[in-house]
Amino acid sequence: MINKDNLTQHISQQFNSELEEVRSHLLAMGGLVEKQVNDAVTALIDADSGLAQQVREIDGQINQMERNIDEECVRILARRQPAAGDLRLIISISKSVIDLERIGDEATKIAKRAILLCEEGEAPRGYVEVRHIGDQVRKMVQEALDAFARFDADLALSVAQYDKTVDREYKTALRELVTFMMEDPRSISRVLNIIWALRSLERIGDHARNIAELVIYLVRGTDVKHMGLTRMKEEVEGTGKDR
Amino acid sequence: MINKDNLTQHISQQFNSELEEVRSHLLAMGGLVEKQVNDAVTALIDADSGLAQQVREIDGQINQMERNIDEECVRILARRQPAAGDLRLIISISKSVIDLERIGDEATKIAKRAILLCEEGEAPRGYVEVRHIGDQVRKMVQEALDAFARFDADLALSVAQYDKTVDREYKTALRELVTFMMEDPRSISRVLNIIWALRSLERIGDHARNIAELVIYLVRGTDVKHMGLTRMKEEVEGTGKDR
Repeated sequence: MINKDNLTQHISQQFNSELEEVRSHLLAMGGLVEKQVNDAVTALIDADSGLAQQVREIDGQINQMERNIDEECVRILARRQPAAGDLRLIISISKSVIDLERIGDEATKIAKRAILLCEEGEAPRGYVEVRHIGDQVRKMVQEALDAFARFDADLALSVAQYDKTVDREYKTALRELVTFMMEDPRSISRVLNIIWALRSLERIGDHARNIAELVIYLVRGTDVKHMGLTRMKEEVEGTGKDR
Repeated sequence: MINKDNLTQHISQQFNSELEEVRSHLLAMGGLVEKQVNDAVTALIDADSGLAQQVREIDGQINQMERNIDEECVRILARRQPAAGDLRLIISISKSVIDLERIGDEATKIAKRAILLCEEGEAPRGYVEVRHIGDQVRKMVQEALDAFARFDADLALSVAQYDKTVDREYKTALRELVTFMMEDPRSISRVLNIIWALRSLERIGDHARNIAELVIYLVRGTDVKHMGLTRMKEEVEGTGKDR
């Protein structure tokens, strides 16, 4: 099992600090992405097109962070030829970065919807749902990153489990909004902006779940993708513990 | 520059065949994914819920292929410690596999919409657009895979460029469908199924573009993500050629 202590037991002190560094870059990128999600949701709810514009501008920084972390990972793979837990760490980081970048993209899409809503006038429904689901997925992103920082497979499991709740609430919200549009067709275009924003939030939840699965892979050594929550739980709590 | 010839000049014949094998597994997975996209679109247009059901069932195979290729890549990284072009090949494969799996997911989502349309009755609009954009993105997936098979950066560039056309046609189709829903609110739920299917097709185009960018990275050694098409073109045709 991998943890902070055996991570720091390399012969090369330099290699240690490279691994620590790339991991801290991932977490810094994660922090910024989390802020982007928060700001995008706030911009939409407060009809703050300035804040929405800011989210769109910061997206370039996130892309640059992805590129830098990618380069760090390739450099470590080429020069250090990591094995076992170190290799899993590099693989988890280089995949998590893809999900973080896409969460950033979804935040930007929400910001675009916020700007459109500022232009077209606010939607008659859906803000409560955006706030609620927005809080849920932001918490998922935050906890997935915490799990990464602390090598905490249990917390990662709870993030993956929570994705089901988000999916259910997203579907309920969608049904209500479709019904509303049928009753008030003039609102269709505005309500669709809310629906697209909700869709982006639901995708953000999926990406947070992906990161959580990568944490489990990192800590337990098992690829739990597509595994179903029951088997994933067994992997984290049961057989996984004996390794 | 990497090509088929220098790929086959390793000291270890065994290493060669491992690289060839994982690459051929990626292409096989790509072939199946491409078929899934085709079948999902056909199922939606022909209101063929049997075919749609088949698409949903085959998705498990694609997930398994992703898992297997992932394992192969990790094994090669751990045992062979590839460098330079070989390392780029493994990185490109392990990232392309993520995009292929997500294309498979989108095909499954289209199949779900096909089934809903069979139940709710066909939508009054949008089938021409689904067929048209469906053909375009399937061609993108096919050509991205061809580019991978032939280490063809020029073909990859043309795939990336074509994504802009798809995005434009998607937006036009969406505008027309929104207008139609406003005129005929009773059709909203059915038309939304078409809109979600179009959205999935547009996402498939994005993933094909990602794969194309990975081919350029593989062949030219430059990360062209988020680069913009003009600089990407220079990278493929200009400076890239001198390497």
